[in-house]
Amino acid sequence: MNDLIQARVLKGFRDFLPEAEIKRKKIQFILEEVFKSYGFLPIDTPVLEYAEVLLGKGGGETDKQVYRFLDHGGRDVAMRFDLTVPFARFMAEHRSELYLPFKRYHIGKVYRGENTQRGRYREFMQCDFDIVGTDCASADFEILALMKGSLEALGISKFRIHLSNRAVFNRVIDRLGAAGKSVGILRIVDKIHKVGREQVREMIGRELDSRAADAILDFITPGSDQEETLEKMTRIAGGEDEDSRRLSDIFSLMKTLDMERYFFLDPSITRGLDYYTGVVFETFLSDIPEIGSVCSGGRYNNLASLYTREQLPGVGSSIGLDRLIAALDALGSGLRGDETPRVLVLCFDYKFLGYYHDLAGRFRLSGIASEVFPENKKLSAQFNFAEKKNIGFAAICGEDEVASRSLTLKNLRTRENHEKISFEKAIEIIKK
Amino acid sequence: MNDLIQARVLKGFRDFLPEAEIKRKKIQFILEEVFKSYGFLPIDTPVLEYAEVLLGKGGGETDKQVYRFLDHGGRDVAMRFDLTVPFARFMAEHRSELYLPFKRYHIGKVYRGENTQRGRYREFMQCDFDIVGTDCASADFEILALMKGSLEALGISKFRIHLSNRAVFNRVIDRLGAAGKSVGILRIVDKIHKVGREQVREMIGRELDSRAADAILDFITPGSDQEETLEKMTRIAGGEDEDSRRLSDIFSLMKTLDMERYFFLDPSITRGLDYYTGVVFETFLSDIPEIGSVCSGGRYNNLASLYTREQLPGVGSSIGLDRLIAALDALGSGLRGDETPRVLVLCFDYKFLGYYHDLAGRFRLSGIASEVFPENKKLSAQFNFAEKKNIGFAAICGEDEVASRSLTLKNLRTRENHEKISFEKAIEIIKK
Repeated sequence: MNDLIQARVLKGFRDFLPEAEIKRKKIQFILEEVFKSYGFLPIDTPVLEYAEVLLGKGGGETDKQVYRFLDHGGRDVAMRFDLTVPFARFMAEHRSELYLPFKRYHIGKVYRGENTQRGRYREFMQCDFDIVGTDCASADFEILALMKGSLEALGISKFRIHLSNRAVFNRVIDRLGAAGKSVGILRIVDKIHKVGREQVREMIGRELDSRAADAILDFITPGSDQEETLEKMTRIAGGEDEDSRRLSDIFSLMKTLDMERYFFLDPSITRGLDYYTGVVFETFLSDIPEIGSVCSGGRYNNLASLYTREQLPGVGSSIGLDRLIAALDALGSGLRGDETPRVLVLCFDYKFLGYYHDLAGRFRLSGIASEVFPENKKLSAQFNFAEKKNIGFAAICGEDEVASRSLTLKNLRTRENHEKISFEKAIEIIKK
Repeated sequence: MNDLIQARVLKGFRDFLPEAEIKRKKIQFILEEVFKSYGFLPIDTPVLEYAEVLLGKGGGETDKQVYRFLDHGGRDVAMRFDLTVPFARFMAEHRSELYLPFKRYHIGKVYRGENTQRGRYREFMQCDFDIVGTDCASADFEILALMKGSLEALGISKFRIHLSNRAVFNRVIDRLGAAGKSVGILRIVDKIHKVGREQVREMIGRELDSRAADAILDFITPGSDQEETLEKMTRIAGGEDEDSRRLSDIFSLMKTLDMERYFFLDPSITRGLDYYTGVVFETFLSDIPEIGSVCSGGRYNNLASLYTREQLPGVGSSIGLDRLIAALDALGSGLRGDETPRVLVLCFDYKFLGYYHDLAGRFRLSGIASEVFPENKKLSAQFNFAEKKNIGFAAICGEDEVASRSLTLKNLRTRENHEKISFEKAIEIIKK
């Protein structure tokens, strides 16, 4: 006998059994319907790319998390670690085939060799949507409205999208004479929900001085309502400018569309990444804020500057599908995978298999999923199978049913039997 | 100015722009609906696995095509090159969580470092469906019926599924005293459509002798109808047995369900791979046979023998989605990606943006995809955008429309204008 190989997946990787995969597909389907209703179109890019394309010349700070190797042709290649960098490459490469503003969504797997002890996966599903080729309040607003629409389509109603404008914050830092340290300061502020205000004040104090730390803490503290917050942000930043007007334009659209209550002007939102230049946002679920943001993003001035000299401004957002699914589970969401009624045609007598397959085919034509139990096993085993597979109805046909072209239908939830009924009658009962 | 990185994908890899991706998703959606209607459930497995799991101890013959490397933890890992081996591992690993017969489908990307000159891709989409845990004619038949149903759902009507039984062929080879060479012989016969009969005769003659070559050529030549072919196959194999009865049971089911004409008993079908043990099949499109089989598979006695001592017989089939899409294109298939009606709300005056976004939202609620052009550009540029994006209708609203809560709707295909109509009237016109 041969030595067996241990059947196992790599740490941080997962199989999806039917129940989990049906749910993931359902969520993906709902999101795609919403994206398409806003005029977003799907694209796809390869999982494997030139390392240089994904990491830039010399590689970046994410380097150690990236699956990178030499392929058979000696090419330095890497597996994508997000969908943003491939999208930037995509825009530069296909610019002449696309029309602007270009609205795309992309749902796909990405790979990061992260520490799995923090409950992170090394293969996970990302879902991005962006509008590229325009820098205006309408596009910013549309992304935010789409985020709201996506969560609502999934049955989530208690959420708030926190937003700010990185450019206003940058003006504050400039005024403090700390322009060179702006990314560092933004990253410190980004940690406020983890480490708390005093820790942030201390870290900024160490980076700049205590007066600057106080000014920044003041800036990132929201006022009692959106008007007051915006007024205060504008004042500390040195007065009105394009960036503060952008925020007021966005909120004015929200008011017109009566969706203000889903949004919260929160100047402590900065997003860690360098490439954001305008609005930035994160989404928290009111009942489970501790899981963190389920949908985040922002505006960037120049998506594809690594690959092209053409300026491509855009705004986009990203849903971590795994976190979202965990959230839906935690919220006890009523999202079921599939509500199609299903019938198991039992194999009562193998010699009637043709009758059974014909019956199953007719059920399918009536929009009812149906399958024939393939073997002459004990009926109890067949019922057991139906129960495990969560099938609602069984069709049982012996000599009598076949002779009269009828069937006996059993509702497996109520145990009710309908004996020797016509096919049409069965459809009626199942669809009820 | 920084040096630009060339925006390009690896050889053998592809981006999918919206038009191509919409089509691929549509095909996938149609197939999934059919699979689900037969009671098949989706699963997913990781793209990256232990090399040992995918290749067996010491690696297999596909080795050179496999993307294989050491990860950060020094683990020997590889990207999956098909969906069959991961499924075998999956069945062994999750056996206790599953009920048999287990029917799964799996659509996912696989990776092979193949020679791209033959028009092959290094990343491509595979679509597999299998029934595991039963060895019977009903399951064989169901896979074949599902293949037929899938092609029909895609609008393909002119096809034939060629099938045979590997076990009958093995009996023929045994009788010729060449049991040890059976895989080699099967592989030679598998090439018959490429190299022709005489070449096959010569190759077998070299492997065995000319009498054996004649016997095998006789065996693989179909008779004038299915009965005659089966009778001849059975005779050359030494008489009736389970394997020939299996074929006759399958054809008898086909007769009952009036689908014989889609199937062709073709004893020259062998499939190259070693693991098939029973029925084997390939599907050819009558108008473009030269593209080869678009859907192939067969029965295997022991799916997961590398990982478990439990015997798991099964039957399954696999669609190469890329080849199928190429086939649909070649057939000039009428499959459109998406027929949802769409409206572009023009940005006639930026100050009415709230009105425009509200209008777009109302269209969406009526099941019509809608988007607002985000910027105050020339109307000609906005119409141009709608045309490129293949959007059927434009809504134009200036002072008058906003004041009267109406809109002007333009049918962009017919150029017809409906001035200052109500929202309800617009819905009516669009849905017509």
